Amino acid sequence: MQAEIITIGDELLIGQTINTNAAWIGNELSLIGIPVKFCTTISDEEKTILQTIDLAFSRSQLIIVTGGLGPTKDDITKETLCKYFETELEINPNALFRIEKYFEARNRKMLDVNVQQAALPKSCKVIDNFQGTACGMWFDKNGAVLVSIPGVPYEMKAMMTNELLPVFKDKFQVSSIFHKTIISTGIGESYLAEIMSDWEDEIRNQGLGLAYLPSPGIVRLRITSDRGETDLKLIDGFFTEIQKRIPQHIFGYENETLIEVVSNLLKSKNKTVGTVESCTGGAIASMLTSISGASNYFLGSLITYSNELKNELANVNLETIKHFGAVSEECVREMAMEGQKKLGVDYCISCSGIAGPEGGTADKPVGEVWISIATKQGVISKKYNFGDNRERNIQMTVLASLNLLRCVVLEIIE
Amino acid sequence: MQAEIITIGDELLIGQTINTNAAWIGNELSLIGIPVKFCTTISDEEKTILQTIDLAFSRSQLIIVTGGLGPTKDDITKETLCKYFETELEINPNALFRIEKYFEARNRKMLDVNVQQAALPKSCKVIDNFQGTACGMWFDKNGAVLVSIPGVPYEMKAMMTNELLPVFKDKFQVSSIFHKTIISTGIGESYLAEIMSDWEDEIRNQGLGLAYLPSPGIVRLRITSDRGETDLKLIDGFFTEIQKRIPQHIFGYENETLIEVVSNLLKSKNKTVGTVESCTGGAIASMLTSISGASNYFLGSLITYSNELKNELANVNLETIKHFGAVSEECVREMAMEGQKKLGVDYCISCSGIAGPEGGTADKPVGEVWISIATKQGVISKKYNFGDNRERNIQMTVLASLNLLRCVVLEIIE
Repeated sequence: MQAEIITIGDELLIGQTINTNAAWIGNELSLIGIPVKFCTTISDEEKTILQTIDLAFSRSQLIIVTGGLGPTKDDITKETLCKYFETELEINPNALFRIEKYFEARNRKMLDVNVQQAALPKSCKVIDNFQGTACGMWFDKNGAVLVSIPGVPYEMKAMMTNELLPVFKDKFQVSSIFHKTIISTGIGESYLAEIMSDWEDEIRNQGLGLAYLPSPGIVRLRITSDRGETDLKLIDGFFTEIQKRIPQHIFGYENETLIEVVSNLLKSKNKTVGTVESCTGGAIASMLTSISGASNYFLGSLITYSNELKNELANVNLETIKHFGAVSEECVREMAMEGQKKLGVDYCISCSGIAGPEGGTADKPVGEVWISIATKQGVISKKYNFGDNRERNIQMTVLASLNLLRCVVLEIIE
Repeated sequence: MQAEIITIGDELLIGQTINTNAAWIGNELSLIGIPVKFCTTISDEEKTILQTIDLAFSRSQLIIVTGGLGPTKDDITKETLCKYFETELEINPNALFRIEKYFEARNRKMLDVNVQQAALPKSCKVIDNFQGTACGMWFDKNGAVLVSIPGVPYEMKAMMTNELLPVFKDKFQVSSIFHKTIISTGIGESYLAEIMSDWEDEIRNQGLGLAYLPSPGIVRLRITSDRGETDLKLIDGFFTEIQKRIPQHIFGYENETLIEVVSNLLKSKNKTVGTVESCTGGAIASMLTSISGASNYFLGSLITYSNELKNELANVNLETIKHFGAVSEECVREMAMEGQKKLGVDYCISCSGIAGPEGGTADKPVGEVWISIATKQGVISKKYNFGDNRERNIQMTVLASLNLLRCVVLEIIE
């Protein structure tokens, strides 16, 4: 059993659009145990589409085709599929009804091209699109299946998630794949491997798969079982152990983000936060307010980029800056303490560092960052070094400060 | 003449990595007039690689293969190419020398697997890699060409840009493609088309191509000539005309970003900026400090998310908020004026809006944003409506406020 993906669209071939659909579909299929072996991107040309489908049926049992279903002239997937499967288009009354409702709800005038979107191949099973006007199509051929779905990412994702993946899972799943993911931050892949080394073998001996999935500042650890959910307890046991060993690095499960975790934590404890930022220039505040409901916990910030404003807004002693420098424990302490009072927050994060690429010295290289968190009870400060890339330094400082805040709130500081 | 791309790697098929390489290569090739007709992603399996290459040679004159050149066991591209082109590996002394230098420069120990990276097919032309240890390979076959290059994006890009694209241009370019791009913001694709409608035909009548390339908040306009640089003056004439018609929307050329343009403008005029932000929560300040040398023009910000802090930090009259609301011209005016004084800047940007998804009313829907800019001479304020997506609203407010600042500095306000 193998699957393949065919993505149709010139915008993909000339690089105007990056093919995120293929990655998303590949990931979802492999998570339910269906191996994807080919992904072919082609242009909206009849001959090419016909040949590519033919080749796909010669080797794969599941073929997912995206794109080319829009209302304009250059979209020819539907007509080409009719030709391939020797059928013809006819107006589908249910599809037409839903498209009419779609336009009604948006108070928009329905054009003839939109009516034509309800014209679908006679021989296919129609897959409803609840996000847009282009229906999906399911074709059977000698036990193999081809589905054609829209290329618009959120329409494609909704159709796959709600209509198709559950059916694929029943029909094609070669094994009963089950997986859980735990997410760490502030610890490199190799250090994590070292901490886990004594029982990584144990995990594998239990017949489980272990994958490290690194991205900047984050390592996700995925344990996979092909015996299905019966292994849930076994996997949870391993995760509990990881969390016990490095609680300050493990922040969540599955697709959670650090800001979601921190935001929920602050909301559940009814606590407020603010920031006094230098090198991040507002990026921490921006992250804290990136999700809905931020006003429940975020009050405000002082962005003190210049030394004068560190003094005038955050009351940092000019002597402190002269003596220890703006990138110093002393400076971030004063910033955080004054911010906590002036912003009237439970927790105030402050930071100061050398984002680069200029401004580094032998003593204080590019990437050196101090982060401090002040509460009504006291202050904690930590020094980090994130290397020589400006964008990465800012991104890492945001992650590290959110995680430090999480540890302070949970009282699990090292 | 057509080209195709083959990207090798399981991580692409299972969606662990998004195939940005294919988009980048597709864009670069089409910019020099080489049409890309297929992009196939396959796994590191000998049989699959052989079949895919064979199919590619049956229809394309240029085949670009990326990936599978690393030092580990799962990378088999080199061996498979030897099989396909009926040749064998031998240590290439130049490649070995460069790999040795590479390790020396980094003070790292060279392992046997690294020596093996200098083993290359006898019959290929070797393409140097100045960023890493995996060389590229160029094979000729009946007038067609296959090049195999690393999958690591910055190695691939350097090799393509410096070693390959110039050669492809000479060898394959079907026409003498020349193009220039002008970039607009704050104006939708359809409005832009309307403004250009009377001479869009003129552009095409001159034998030039015109493409609208939209992305959130930005529309790039690309004019293409297949007569080469001789058309430079003609194209510049059109661009001068566009700029004259909508100077407040046209901010740059080619790959410039709005923040680069604004940053250069402030530096050249020796002016400083700060912000007083509500709905963006620091995102404008974060953008202003995202590029190196920001301390030349950016001093600091007040992030006044709560109404209390709007009053305490930015001195907004509580009566103003009670009367007109926090999302009002009156409120952003006071924020900007106080910020200009308190931060001691030449220009202070302020904003307040309903980012959503909650908090909208019939009167002030989600997406309504006021932006104000205060100078020593006065204040200007504008109302925007960006729709119902929180992330998009924040991103659009950042773009709109930077563009408004650009217009204020250049004195080209509508």
